[in-house]
Amino acid sequence: MFAASLEAHASVVQQRVPLMTASDVLLVAGTHGNEVNAPWLLEAWQRTPDLVDAHGLTVQPLIGNPDARAANRRYIDRDLNRSFLPERFASDESEALELARARSLVQLHGPHGTHPCRVALDLHSTTAAMGSCLVVYGRRPADLALASLVQGALGLPVYLHEADDRQTGFLVECWPCGLVIEVGPVPQSLLDVRIVEQTRLAVETCLASLAAARRAAGRYPRQLVVHRHRCSLDLPRRDGNQISGLLHGDRLGRDWQPLASEDPLFVELCGQGLPAIQGFDGEVGDVPVFINEAAYAEKRIALSLTRREVWPVEDAWRTALEHLLKS
Amino acid sequence: MFAASLEAHASVVQQRVPLMTASDVLLVAGTHGNEVNAPWLLEAWQRTPDLVDAHGLTVQPLIGNPDARAANRRYIDRDLNRSFLPERFASDESEALELARARSLVQLHGPHGTHPCRVALDLHSTTAAMGSCLVVYGRRPADLALASLVQGALGLPVYLHEADDRQTGFLVECWPCGLVIEVGPVPQSLLDVRIVEQTRLAVETCLASLAAARRAAGRYPRQLVVHRHRCSLDLPRRDGNQISGLLHGDRLGRDWQPLASEDPLFVELCGQGLPAIQGFDGEVGDVPVFINEAAYAEKRIALSLTRREVWPVEDAWRTALEHLLKS
Repeated sequence: MFAASLEAHASVVQQRVPLMTASDVLLVAGTHGNEVNAPWLLEAWQRTPDLVDAHGLTVQPLIGNPDARAANRRYIDRDLNRSFLPERFASDESEALELARARSLVQLHGPHGTHPCRVALDLHSTTAAMGSCLVVYGRRPADLALASLVQGALGLPVYLHEADDRQTGFLVECWPCGLVIEVGPVPQSLLDVRIVEQTRLAVETCLASLAAARRAAGRYPRQLVVHRHRCSLDLPRRDGNQISGLLHGDRLGRDWQPLASEDPLFVELCGQGLPAIQGFDGEVGDVPVFINEAAYAEKRIALSLTRREVWPVEDAWRTALEHLLKS
Repeated sequence: MFAASLEAHASVVQQRVPLMTASDVLLVAGTHGNEVNAPWLLEAWQRTPDLVDAHGLTVQPLIGNPDARAANRRYIDRDLNRSFLPERFASDESEALELARARSLVQLHGPHGTHPCRVALDLHSTTAAMGSCLVVYGRRPADLALASLVQGALGLPVYLHEADDRQTGFLVECWPCGLVIEVGPVPQSLLDVRIVEQTRLAVETCLASLAAARRAAGRYPRQLVVHRHRCSLDLPRRDGNQISGLLHGDRLGRDWQPLASEDPLFVELCGQGLPAIQGFDGEVGDVPVFINEAAYAEKRIALSLTRREVWPVEDAWRTALEHLLKS
């Protein structure tokens, strides 16, 4: 079922030997080097081929950032999952490791690569209590079709990331169809069997959904519920730099739960007096996600706010996905 | 109440200018650079002096490993909290950053340092569900007296680390009295107001206990409950290297809960068949601690096993602590 083993693939990437095969799905783990559960799952799958049912699809497994993984860090020079920026692939002098890695992966496995893949699934974990969910970037019909099938099968929430100029260059955007599977909460660098199992189930459901779509046998729900990105909030800071307040305890672990006006949001510790609490003053019904994701501290994101929207599933979505898988 | 600000102290360390002052307590945060809550607390305390009541003691705050903290990593070259090895301080050529840092801290703040401190409190966090607890290294009377006072006041469990040749060189062992305050669960690199508050309470209680002991007014319980280190267990591995099994889900988050014979311990995922479960075959009544601490993966420790023991509080303990604080 595997197009190539992870080990063989690593050497291929290094030697840049063109492969003549194509795969249905590029399955990426370890795009962030300290998210360790999905890479462990991929390697366990190679030892135990029936660990995940690929439903007849050819799957190309890949460790996204092996250097960062070896260093047990999110990245070496810059976030790989903000480095898929084709407009920057042309310059090849003195560039970050991750820009070179992104370019190389697109050259190898992109739709026009030497070993092309049709769909990219990118496996992530988070310290936030997101449970298992899908992240979709923009409103590409094939992505929305796949998200609809998976939501119909498992009920997973969908975070629709769009209109965020500060966060661009995501891996899956370089493939004609692709989703992030995000699972949490789990600390960075920590193997947790529950996270592995959740990831396994989400991957298997994505593969089953794609296989069904290829046969034009997908069971679509009538509606897709998305949580559309609206904005991100930073922690309170003093002089624009030093963190002066933390997320209020009432917010921790409550991803996907709508905020009400005046809900405690941030707290500043104040010695023997009462703590200074900053309440929520955004739009009523905003739904927070990625609350206290450790890796977002450097991006100055304490949480993101979304709006829950219900969209009818469109015929054009399924057509786009079926066309992609059959072509 | 502070002997010197963190900032001023940092420059002092760098310039190695001898100070003529002494302090009662060396309060160390950030001995591991990606344990971020205690450093945040220390800095907040400096902005807000009544955030922690020092009960009249002079306190020297210190960031243990500022280089690792800046890099958002546990350490740069080696674990600072395994580097307090005076027998290795003599060699000063081509040594690890952390060995040099350990030597410098002992020269500055050790009992015979230029700016000596009597007691060291070292603040840590863990990804394991340890709650708030104390770690005591060996059976020094003054340590046991302080642990007894804090356990009497707050009920915190005490992990007695001893007889472990693989884990040596802890910071507090270079002071005549010292404890680790360990709080979890919290991911690495993540600020969590609950962890900050738990740390604040434990620090304040330690300081109150020391102040009372100095006045010979400590309220000791009759007994000290310790969990004595017995051994550590690694995850199952294939060929002695690759991790083949994970901690069973039933074990996660259950630190301090005694194991029964055959309790599921590890699990190996096995595809469509039943997972292979390895049950506990150690001594009945073993109590696990530090279950799935992320930083211990490289030390090959999946959890440690302890024995719960109840010791009468000895007069010699309180005498040792009072003598140390009055001298």
